[in-house]
This record gives sequence, structure tokens and C-alpha cells, in this order.
Amino acid sequence: MNIEMIRAAAARLNGHARRTPLLSSHFLDEIAGRRVWIKPECLQHTGSFKFRGAWSALSAMDPAKRAKGVIAFSSGNHAQGVALAAKLHGTSAVIIMPADSPQLKLDNTRAYGAEVVTYDRAQEDRDEIGVRLSKERGLTLIKPFDEPLVIAGQGTCGLEIAEQAAELGITEADVIVCCGGGGLTSGIALALEADAPGLRVRPAEPEGFDDVARSLRTGGIERNNATSGNICDAIITPQPGDITFPLMQARCGPGLVVSEDEALHAMAHAFNRLKLVAEPGGAVALAAALFRTDQITGDDVIVTISGGNVDAPMFARALESLT
Amino acid sequence: MNIEMIRAAAARLNGHARRTPLLSSHFLDEIAGRRVWIKPECLQHTGSFKFRGAWSALSAMDPAKRAKGVIAFSSGNHAQGVALAAKLHGTSAVIIMPADSPQLKLDNTRAYGAEVVTYDRAQEDRDEIGVRLSKERGLTLIKPFDEPLVIAGQGTCGLEIAEQAAELGITEADVIVCCGGGGLTSGIALALEADAPGLRVRPAEPEGFDDVARSLRTGGIERNNATSGNICDAIITPQPGDITFPLMQARCGPGLVVSEDEALHAMAHAFNRLKLVAEPGGAVALAAALFRTDQITGDDVIVTISGGNVDAPMFARALESLT
Repeated sequence: MNIEMIRAAAARLNGHARRTPLLSSHFLDEIAGRRVWIKPECLQHTGSFKFRGAWSALSAMDPAKRAKGVIAFSSGNHAQGVALAAKLHGTSAVIIMPADSPQLKLDNTRAYGAEVVTYDRAQEDRDEIGVRLSKERGLTLIKPFDEPLVIAGQGTCGLEIAEQAAELGITEADVIVCCGGGGLTSGIALALEADAPGLRVRPAEPEGFDDVARSLRTGGIERNNATSGNICDAIITPQPGDITFPLMQARCGPGLVVSEDEALHAMAHAFNRLKLVAEPGGAVALAAALFRTDQITGDDVIVTISGGNVDAPMFARALESLT
Repeated sequence: MNIEMIRAAAARLNGHARRTPLLSSHFLDEIAGRRVWIKPECLQHTGSFKFRGAWSALSAMDPAKRAKGVIAFSSGNHAQGVALAAKLHGTSAVIIMPADSPQLKLDNTRAYGAEVVTYDRAQEDRDEIGVRLSKERGLTLIKPFDEPLVIAGQGTCGLEIAEQAAELGITEADVIVCCGGGGLTSGIALALEADAPGLRVRPAEPEGFDDVARSLRTGGIERNNATSGNICDAIITPQPGDITFPLMQARCGPGLVVSEDEALHAMAHAFNRLKLVAEPGGAVALAAALFRTDQITGDDVIVTISGGNVDAPMFARALESLT
């Protein structure tokens, strides 16, 4: 896993993935006490950064193998990314999703033409289902984060951040990244190490699901106690990946942790001040920038809004936090 | 009023206004039966395109005159644009706003440092208040649309559309623009006439406030019967401007008209499919693209989402239309 893989992914994504802008708001700067720069990956195709990694993986596959179809498991953002990337490559996708995924994510994954297989998050093992189906049908598994081609795709977001920060004259800053399994976090960290070494990546996670923050602290892979029960469905992965963790350990930290209420409040600020729709898991980095100001240093902070796939009732709940 | 004024405005706006992207969604394409390209001016500074015109006007002023302060009247988007442009130019702004403006617009205008003077839309004449205050205090009036420097600023949005359409290979399309007094509509039309003559501007308005559509049809300036009573507060201007109407008459039409419910439904689609926050008046062009498909020709249609300054309860109402 190296920077050249990310540059190669960027070449494959060129003209297919969106180059998202870097946004800001005077109001958010005032709350944070420093300038806050937003990388809105909710504006990426399929509403999250996951399209980058999915396109990276699909576009690098042997065409004959790709034509047989792909399979993925995901709570919904990787699902949509793989579904659309498969559709655009003219192949089929089977996506294994928890039955309690947000309805929008289930609906959209199907609408992109994928076959959705749901499972019970508490009772069934998605890995087992994935291995069985991929063998039975000759499908290639596209892992959600612990896969170099996927990490390389997510890393293209970091190449853009490096360029956009340079245009703004920002040479030193914390870059807070919404973190589940660590694909986006490690990809951005690799890109910044090469192109903007003064920018330091810091993972953001929800309380109770801070496996990456704890793993970075102890130096070994730590698991979460729970596997469900948090509104940040996109990033409540059980533990960091075998590939992503060493990448993060060498380049990232310390982690930042926010509450569900703070994630909802950050969603409301994104609505009010940025005119962006963020999902709970996509808002934890902004929440950290706004509500953990004493744990951040420097005049500038860069945050990802990693996704915006949220059902209307959850969004309405976030808006209520404005009053 | 000519294209050179728009190019000069673009030079003044460079590095100050945002170049907004051109977005799309497979789901919206399916509803519309053609490719739909979104110019999201809700992502512009202050949450609407109005910052372009305000910056254009303020940046072209004689510095000594500017230092004495400016005054504007507006239901809220021009208000915020002028307030922020004045703040960034180090001068003061007085903004005359209807007392029933959305709370967010009143709050933000004040938060950008402007002095807000409210008036009763039904009882008082904002022009009279504006003339009196500008004389008493030596303030320069920045009109919301019938002012060449303001039209030139809004026209920079059209220069960007021309470039972005060319990158996509789009040479012929309807460009639907949310239309109040016609500043954005006429500015974009002038820019496209010069840089993308195959793109035709069509104003979109709410039912009952279709003064521009009717004026284009009859060839003379037509007024609306009502001056309030529609959720599209940003664009319920009484009639097209003396400067904007001839510009539109020579270049734009026919107009498209949508209902309040269709505007709300378009807001819900922008939430769901684009992860963007649109206000009712900013969603009428998208509504026309989605729900007036038989009045539109061609394989591509381009629409502005002109603003996103909407209070949470109104947005929640739009989300309810999803179910």
C-alpha cells in the first residue's frame, strides 16, 4: 500500500468520481474558534466517499472476472458505491446488508440495480454469508475497507484535500476524518503524508464505538463491545482492519470522540450553515471540530462530511436540536 | 448592460465568490426523462447566488463612498449577500426587511453585522423607507436586481454554467432559472448568449406569482395580484424590473410555473438525491425540470438551485412530502 496506488486510482477515477469542493462558513468558524474547512463527500456520487473506493476496485479488475459479478457487505454506503460502480461497468452486484439499515440505503442500493440480501446483524455472520455466496456464484468480494484498491480510491479524497489546502495557503492543520474501519482515514493519511506533510489526520468516532481511538492509544487492535445501537450506522464497524490499522498507527491520531447528540447537532449546523445534508456517521468529524475545540490545535481545521444518506425522520430529529 | 460587465464582475469576484459545481443524480434523470444538471447556488457564500451580485456592486464602488455605508431592501437573500459583502469590505450595511421574513434570514443578516430595519409588508413602502434612510445617513442603495452591477455579478453564474456545460459536451439545453425580479435570470441569459448560445434560459416561478412568465407572453411588464402569501418568499417580487425585463424579453422564455407543493417536493428530492438544502423559492427550477417535463425539450436540462436559506420547520414540511 503506497502513494503510487492512490495516484493510479486518481487516474482511474478521473471523469467518473466528483472532485468535491472545500466549503466554509463564518458561523462555523466562530463556534470552533478557528477556520473550519469542509470536504463534503456527501456530494460525491451515491452520497458518500464510498463511490471512490468502489470505482477504484471495479475499474482495476480483470474484465473477464468483473463480468462474472461482484459481491459486498455494507450497512449502506459501500453498498451504494459498489452497486453504482458495478452498474456503470456493466456488471452485476450482490450486496449483503443488515436488515435494520436505513430504508434510504436499502432502497437506493436496489435502485442502482444491485441484488440486496439482508441479514440479522445480531444473529448472522455477514462474512460467512459473503464467502458462501461468492463461492456459489463465482462473485468477487469487494471488501468495505481492508482492501488496498479500496483504500487507494478513498485516498483520492486526500489528494484533493492536499491540493485545496495548498491553494488556501494552509500548510499545518488537523484533518478530522469520520472513521469506521479506517479505509478513508488511512487513505487520506497516505495521501497527505506524500503531498501535504504538515496536515495531520485524526479519526473521529461516536462514543462507545471508539475502537480506532483506543487502538491508536494502546498500539494494538481493540474491539467495540457493541455492534449496534448507535445512530451513526455508517461507522460502527467492530474494529480497525488488519491493513488499515498499521497505516493509521504510523500516521494518525489521537482520535476524537463525540456523542450522538453532538453528531445530530453538527448535522443541524451543516443544514443551517452549509446547506448540506449530512448523515449521523458523516457528521462526527464536524462535531469534533465544533465541540472538541480544546483537543485541536492551529488556526485551521479540515473535516470530512463523509456521507449524507439519512432517512427523513432522523434528519428531522437533527433539525429539532436547533431549537 | 453587456457581457463585458459580467466578465469584469467575474474578475472582481475571483477568489471571493465560490465557483459552485454542476451536480447530477441518476434518480433525478429517471424522473425527468432526461439528464438533469444542478447548479447549486445554495452552496454559495451566504447560502444563495445573491452574494455574487452584492460583491460585484460593493467591489466596484468608489472607496470613499463605500466607506459611508450601504443600504438594501430584501426578503433575506440579497440582505445576507449585501451584509457579508459589506462586512468583508470593512463598511456598514443597513438592511430593510419584511417583518415576516424567515427567522434564519433575519438572524443571519444581523449576524453578518448589518443593522436590520423591519417593516410591515402590507402597510409600509420599503422604497420610501430606503430613500429616507439613505438620504438621512448618506448611504448608497444597492438594489436587489434592477441594477447593472448586480446583474453583472449574478451573470457570473452563467459564465460558469457555460464552461461546465462545454466540459460535459452539452451544446443545446434549456437552462431553468428560479426567477424573482430577474437579476439572476437576465444575468445568466446575457452570459449564455455570449458563451453558450445553444443554451436557452427559461424563468421558473410559483403559481400566482408568475409575473415574468406573463410579461414574456404579453410583451409588457405585468404585475402580480398579491405581494405575499406564498412559501417561495425569495422570489415573490411584484413585477420584473425596468432593466431586467427588456434583457429577458430578448433572450428568455417561455416561463415555467410550479405549485407550492411541487416546490416542496423538489426540496425533498434535493435532500434525498443531491444531499442539498434548497429553500422553496430556490427549488422551483428543479420542480419545473421534474414536473413540467412535457414543456421542456432536449436530452439535457440545467437548473439553478438558487438558495438554501430555509427555516427548519419549513424544511421538515418538505421532508413530509417524501412519505
